[in-house]
Amino acid sequence: VTNVAIIMAGGAGTRFWPASRSAQPKQLLPLLGGATSMLAHTVERILPLVAAEHIYVVTGESIAEATRTAVPQIPASNILCEPTGRNTAPCIGWASWVIAKRHPDARVMVLPSDHHIGNPDAFRTALLQALDTASEGLLTTIGIVPTRAETGYGYIEVGDVLPATASSHSSRETPSRQQEARVGLRFVEKPNRERAQEYLDGGKHLWNAGMFFFRVSDMADAIRAHLPELASGLDMMTCDASSADPSTVARIFPTLPSISIDHGVMEKVPRLAVVPGEFGWSDVGSFLSAWELAEKDGNQNGGPAVVVEGQGNYSANFGKARQIALVGVSDLVVVCTDDAVIVVPRERSQDVKLAIEAIKKQGDPLKVL
Amino acid sequence: VTNVAIIMAGGAGTRFWPASRSAQPKQLLPLLGGATSMLAHTVERILPLVAAEHIYVVTGESIAEATRTAVPQIPASNILCEPTGRNTAPCIGWASWVIAKRHPDARVMVLPSDHHIGNPDAFRTALLQALDTASEGLLTTIGIVPTRAETGYGYIEVGDVLPATASSHSSRETPSRQQEARVGLRFVEKPNRERAQEYLDGGKHLWNAGMFFFRVSDMADAIRAHLPELASGLDMMTCDASSADPSTVARIFPTLPSISIDHGVMEKVPRLAVVPGEFGWSDVGSFLSAWELAEKDGNQNGGPAVVVEGQGNYSANFGKARQIALVGVSDLVVVCTDDAVIVVPRERSQDVKLAIEAIKKQGDPLKVL
Repeated sequence: VTNVAIIMAGGAGTRFWPASRSAQPKQLLPLLGGATSMLAHTVERILPLVAAEHIYVVTGESIAEATRTAVPQIPASNILCEPTGRNTAPCIGWASWVIAKRHPDARVMVLPSDHHIGNPDAFRTALLQALDTASEGLLTTIGIVPTRAETGYGYIEVGDVLPATASSHSSRETPSRQQEARVGLRFVEKPNRERAQEYLDGGKHLWNAGMFFFRVSDMADAIRAHLPELASGLDMMTCDASSADPSTVARIFPTLPSISIDHGVMEKVPRLAVVPGEFGWSDVGSFLSAWELAEKDGNQNGGPAVVVEGQGNYSANFGKARQIALVGVSDLVVVCTDDAVIVVPRERSQDVKLAIEAIKKQGDPLKVL
Repeated sequence: VTNVAIIMAGGAGTRFWPASRSAQPKQLLPLLGGATSMLAHTVERILPLVAAEHIYVVTGESIAEATRTAVPQIPASNILCEPTGRNTAPCIGWASWVIAKRHPDARVMVLPSDHHIGNPDAFRTALLQALDTASEGLLTTIGIVPTRAETGYGYIEVGDVLPATASSHSSRETPSRQQEARVGLRFVEKPNRERAQEYLDGGKHLWNAGMFFFRVSDMADAIRAHLPELASGLDMMTCDASSADPSTVARIFPTLPSISIDHGVMEKVPRLAVVPGEFGWSDVGSFLSAWELAEKDGNQNGGPAVVVEGQGNYSANFGKARQIALVGVSDLVVVCTDDAVIVVPRERSQDVKLAIEAIKKQGDPLKVL
């Protein structure tokens, strides 16, 4: 069997404006310091398990070039460019159809391109366990063991431990804190605070981190069964030899049903497996997350700013070298690029989107969006 | 008689960092919007009264070129470059010695280069009145009528109205709100808050705005009488034909006594005249002043930033075009250049200096100071 990865890198995130742009979304940014993009980190993390030639990156046409530059080790023919975003089912479906032709026996991991993993070794252990579970013929996901009553994520309710099998037995010899795979009962939408607390206390709900594992033939079967329209579109789109003739993709891809893999497939299969994961996961959803993950000084300030009489600030500069100075302010986010600066309270990091709306409303002569 | 102006433009202000730098101090910045520097505004304001060829600008050697560029209408030979700052007495003394050779009958106004004048017509009326008063042989200053109990300025205590004379009579026909010149009793250092309130209530104290008026021969006499060391230094320094041989200046100027014209001369003369001034004066001492003088939106935000859910912010950008966005923050100063950003509460604008100290302490590899 061949381990294959599909990395979903089509996001156009605006939550990190002004760092993130339509032409440079979150996954292409070195959001957590250094010079390495989130996408490149994602690739590097799995290289011990998956050869570069078996890693597929699905991205958008408008950022194709920037994506290729970010991960030069990935063969160009493995970078699939969506002419337009149609949610995750067409994204994963397309890549699966392409992979099925090249490696009919592949076992596949689907990973987001813009998450942070605090413990890559534990992460890789979980990936292997999930692949082993998927080898049994089960569509599998990793559910993150919650560490707080988070209302911003979807959850997966899990049931009993899956019965052990020959292949899954082997992976149970991995470090003891790795938990056994469980039966996935249902996907749950973002809860309110009370419900989130119940989930946390109950121990039966894990965070849906958008990671999926399957034998490529099982995913194809599931799409044929539950999204037949998508399956026939993919058949048409990939019937030529190269499997990715641009004009065919341009014609057919936009007609595919826009639906998530969760709703379209995972929720509908009779048996779903969930591997609980504890490896310092963060979806890095806002500058608040970036602050949480950043190295901080004794006053909880993270980032390169000189801070005088201030605590809990997060600063970042994504442009040319620049001195940021904060005097007498606390709990602020201050982020610069060469053409923009944002200042927002750290706990309102999500409201970066309000700035984008306001700039759209006034017009954007500087093209900073 | 010839009206002559001395504009003191040697300041190295750091209160507007990162906009102000050692190489680009406050007077060379367009601090109040537009593209015109404070110095150029100062020159433009007095051109109706003083020909450009009779305006002298005293500046520092390190900013000589930038100063010439800022006021191209001023003859190069009228720009006097101090090799080092020695306070205002040597500055005004040097210019006076130079002027005395060219225009022995000149009546002179000495003006700071970095103040804002809300009502230039009233300002010019006051200047003419002060020149008329000085024509009587009195060293004269303009005292600003206080509008608040300010503790940041020095004051001048005034006495009776000066007796009218032939020439001062003519200027009393200027607009009726112009007040008559009074006897200057004494200079007073910056008061505490209680004392400042007494000054405001008493009506006998005016703000010392650093503007001086005299017949050039009177100033020369006063310096010879009260600062003989300065006088003899100036005699030596200006004995050659050009009056400003650079090597002579470089040799002698740094040896001149470092003292203010207030302490060295104005406080010591037996009779001082003070013209009360009411013309929307501001010394633009910090970003707080800049905010006060700025056009503001309905939420009291001044400057080019897009502000969402915030009040009373001041923003400015002195670099390339850049979008500043403020979300959910109030009463902040956010100022950018191409290589630096500062964020400080508006009411702590004076504490910009703390940022400079902190940057000095950590080293300044980016050369932003």
